[in-house]
Amino acid sequence: MTDEFFSRVAFNPDGLIPAIAQQHDTGEVLMLAWMNRESIEESLATGQVCYFSRSRQKLWRKGETSGQTQKLIELRLDCDGDTLLLLVAQTGVACHTGRRTCFYTALRDGALIEIASPETSPESLYGRKP
Amino acid sequence: MTDEFFSRVAFNPDGLIPAIAQQHDTGEVLMLAWMNRESIEESLATGQVCYFSRSRQKLWRKGETSGQTQKLIELRLDCDGDTLLLLVAQTGVACHTGRRTCFYTALRDGALIEIASPETSPESLYGRKP
Repeated sequence: MTDEFFSRVAFNPDGLIPAIAQQHDTGEVLMLAWMNRESIEESLATGQVCYFSRSRQKLWRKGETSGQTQKLIELRLDCDGDTLLLLVAQTGVACHTGRRTCFYTALRDGALIEIASPETSPESLYGRKP
Repeated sequence: MTDEFFSRVAFNPDGLIPAIAQQHDTGEVLMLAWMNRESIEESLATGQVCYFSRSRQKLWRKGETSGQTQKLIELRLDCDGDTLLLLVAQTGVACHTGRRTCFYTALRDGALIEIASPETSPESLYGRKP
């Protein structure tokens, strides 16, 4: 059923494609991670977002350890097929630092400042310091 | 002044980092493109977004041909420094197809459907078919 979709997806030489996760109702950009074909298929099958971890070289079921899952609301593909946009319903926080979004650092007047505080502690998410 | 910033940016082995462009006021995700250090420096210096074109292997001053420029409102960095989020004020359309966003294709019930129509023609943007 998704053959047409996969025929349009342009994976990189490593078989991966970047996926932007955006909170479906607020529009907040939560994070960017990578997916391979298997992680996309699993996300579509389960309705829960699964990425591919480049550092661990295996499927990364978002929230499996932390409980901070992402329900997949809609998957979109860009014009040249090399980026995905995932509209998600984020449970809790997206970032391993305990912040809602990974994009909490802004460059303002040449200085980096934190524009969001942790809503929960990494210890409470992972049972240890990350 | 941006030494601290660049010390936190994790470019990939090609010297590039993915950059998500988001309309600053509506939250719409417009596109994803790539930047190198030079394109970031130029964007910060001019206030107009400049990417690095991987296909042409040179700086890509967004809107230089089409007039559909992106004013840089704020630059944000993610938690591990390997993705940028650009809050922009998009003039006209972001996509070369004449659509506001590049993410106009959605997967719904296993089928790909177009959820946005062109607002202008590629011919009017580029003077020829793309």
